[in-house]
Parts: sequence; structure tokens; C-alpha cells
Amino acid sequence: MLKELILKNRSYRRFFQSEKISSDQLREWVNLARNSASACNAQSMKYILSTDESWNAQIFEQLAWAGYLTTWKGPEEGERPSAYIVLLNDTLISGNYFCDDGIVLQSILLGATEAGFGGCIIHSVNRNKLRQLLNLSEQYEILYVVALGKPKETVVLEEVKDGDIKYWRDENQVHHVPKRPLDEIILEVK
Amino acid sequence: MLKELILKNRSYRRFFQSEKISSDQLREWVNLARNSASACNAQSMKYILSTDESWNAQIFEQLAWAGYLTTWKGPEEGERPSAYIVLLNDTLISGNYFCDDGIVLQSILLGATEAGFGGCIIHSVNRNKLRQLLNLSEQYEILYVVALGKPKETVVLEEVKDGDIKYWRDENQVHHVPKRPLDEIILEVK
Repeated sequence: MLKELILKNRSYRRFFQSEKISSDQLREWVNLARNSASACNAQSMKYILSTDESWNAQIFEQLAWAGYLTTWKGPEEGERPSAYIVLLNDTLISGNYFCDDGIVLQSILLGATEAGFGGCIIHSVNRNKLRQLLNLSEQYEILYVVALGKPKETVVLEEVKDGDIKYWRDENQVHHVPKRPLDEIILEVK
Repeated sequence: MLKELILKNRSYRRFFQSEKISSDQLREWVNLARNSASACNAQSMKYILSTDESWNAQIFEQLAWAGYLTTWKGPEEGERPSAYIVLLNDTLISGNYFCDDGIVLQSILLGATEAGFGGCIIHSVNRNKLRQLLNLSEQYEILYVVALGKPKETVVLEEVKDGDIKYWRDENQVHHVPKRPLDEIILEVK
């Protein structure tokens, strides 16, 4: 059932690094993205896949993790992602991809979740260095990096208190994510 | 299985208008959106729901349909959506919602599809008139309108030929959507 899948699909940042993800699995998840809606059906989203340890290590260096956890520098060796998908916009196809980025990212992460994996959408990326690393021409705009792996942390949802939406980690390393209640996000027409 | 759900989730533009959607159903789908990932967990997406015939008719007037079907003016009376979700960004919460829009829209449409309904994300919206109609303050940016209903058309996926990604409708009113092949959208790192 979709609701269970969506609830299971949390943003995970620590993984069992030795649990590998195959290229075929990544391709399956991108195939879900491929078959999702696209503005004007332009389909300008492009993907670079990494499952290789050496590439993974180099991509990892270009990422910043969990802005609200100011004392945490990201996952330690052994808890790092075992795969990445770099999401690009092909600017020769379209300068305006509308909300295609979010649509494909949700499809990919739901696919990963269904397969027993999980991940995190990362926007804090050193784009210049990642572009050099991937030898990527200016035709491609780097949008996000999706970190993927077998989740090694517990994430719980809770209700926002006093308007504070910052996620936090407790003494047992459980990750808490406050969500706004439904009646706050649905507006009544006056 | 997610893949079946994603393949079933096409952009539908003609509906059995008499097949109603309840407010509770819309709220369930927004609840899926609520429990999806949000950039910096800001959760600035807000929603206006419409299931009322009179409201639906007024919202319909503010929409343009299917840009590539130049001779088609949108669904006739009897084939129009039976519900709408207006997606807003609450600018007092965040000026940059990153890809939250696509994430929540994909969650909503997958929820609708699982429940036997379907819809279409519409960006061609007369935002000024819709704002007046909904008596909406400038605090809220109108992003998209999702048209929802019981689909009354067949949509088939096919492979892009000669680079032409425009969807088209055949003589039997079947809607064809060309998709780029997987090997075109996954880039090899050189």
C-alpha cells in the first residue's frame, strides 16, 4: 500500500555501507522516474549512476549533510551511501523543467524504499568540483545528488511543536522529524 | 507494486464527471504529500481542496489544457474533473521550496491512482483570476492546479521517434505519450 511505502520512505543519512546496490537496481529506479509525468513531456532530466566504491568516495567529498545537525559532519566510513544518482537537467532540451525534479526524485526514492533501501536528496553539493570530477559539460545543470543505501538509522515522525520544524537527533541517535498537521497545511476558502 | 502504480499514473484530461471524489479522499492524498520529504523540512506547501460543483466550474475556467493538442479546448461538460487541489507555496515560511512541489504532486497523484482515480498537473493557470476567486492573499504563491477525477480516456506510452516528444491523440481518441529510452537519459561518466 502506498501510504506504508511513503511513511517508510524517510530521508536516511546513515547506511550499512557494505550492503551494495547494483547498477541494474539503480536503472530500475530511474526507469520509474522515466515513466513519471514530465512538464510538456520534455523529459529533460538526465542521470549519472554510481555504485563503484572509488567513485562513491569522490562524490561523497562534494556533499554537505543535514544542515540542522550542526555538530555532525556526515556519515562516518562504514555508514556511507553505497550508491549515488546525480540528477541533471539537460539545458539543450529545456531551460525550464518545472517540477520534474521533485517528481522523478520521489519516484526514485519510493522505488528504492520498496526494494528495502533508502536515501536522501542532497542539494548542498560542491557543483564545480562535482562537474570537474564527472567531466560534465555546461549543457548539464547539476540539480541534486541522491545518496542511497541500506538505512542504518531510525527516523520517527512527530508533530511540530511551537512552530519548530528543525529535525533533531536524540541521545540514542534516533532522528526526529516534526511534521505540520494536516489542518495547518489545508487552507479553507473564505 | 510501485511500478504498476507509476505506469497506471498517467496524465488524464478527460473524466467521468459524475464520479465524485470526497473531501476525505483529497485529504488522504494531501496526507501522503504531508509525509513526504521536504527541503530543510520547511514544509511550505499549502493546499486548497475543491469537490464542490460550483467551485469546480469556476476553477475550470482558469485553466488551459494540453498545449500540444492545439485544436482541443479542454474537456467538455460531462468529462470535466470532479475535484481540484490548488498547490500553493506559503512565502512566509519559505521563499525557496526547492523540489517540494514535484515531490508532493507525485505523492498526491500516486495516491489518487491507487484509489482508482487519476489527474493532471496544470501549470497554465490564470493566476490573477484564480487568486481573486479564492480570495487568496499575496502570502501564497499559486504553483499548480491538480485536476482530478475518474479517468475516461486511454493513455499509452511509446518510444520517442525522431526526437519528437509531443504527445498526440489518434482517431480513436487514444492519447499517445512518447518517452525517451532509458539509455538516452542515463549518462555514462567518461
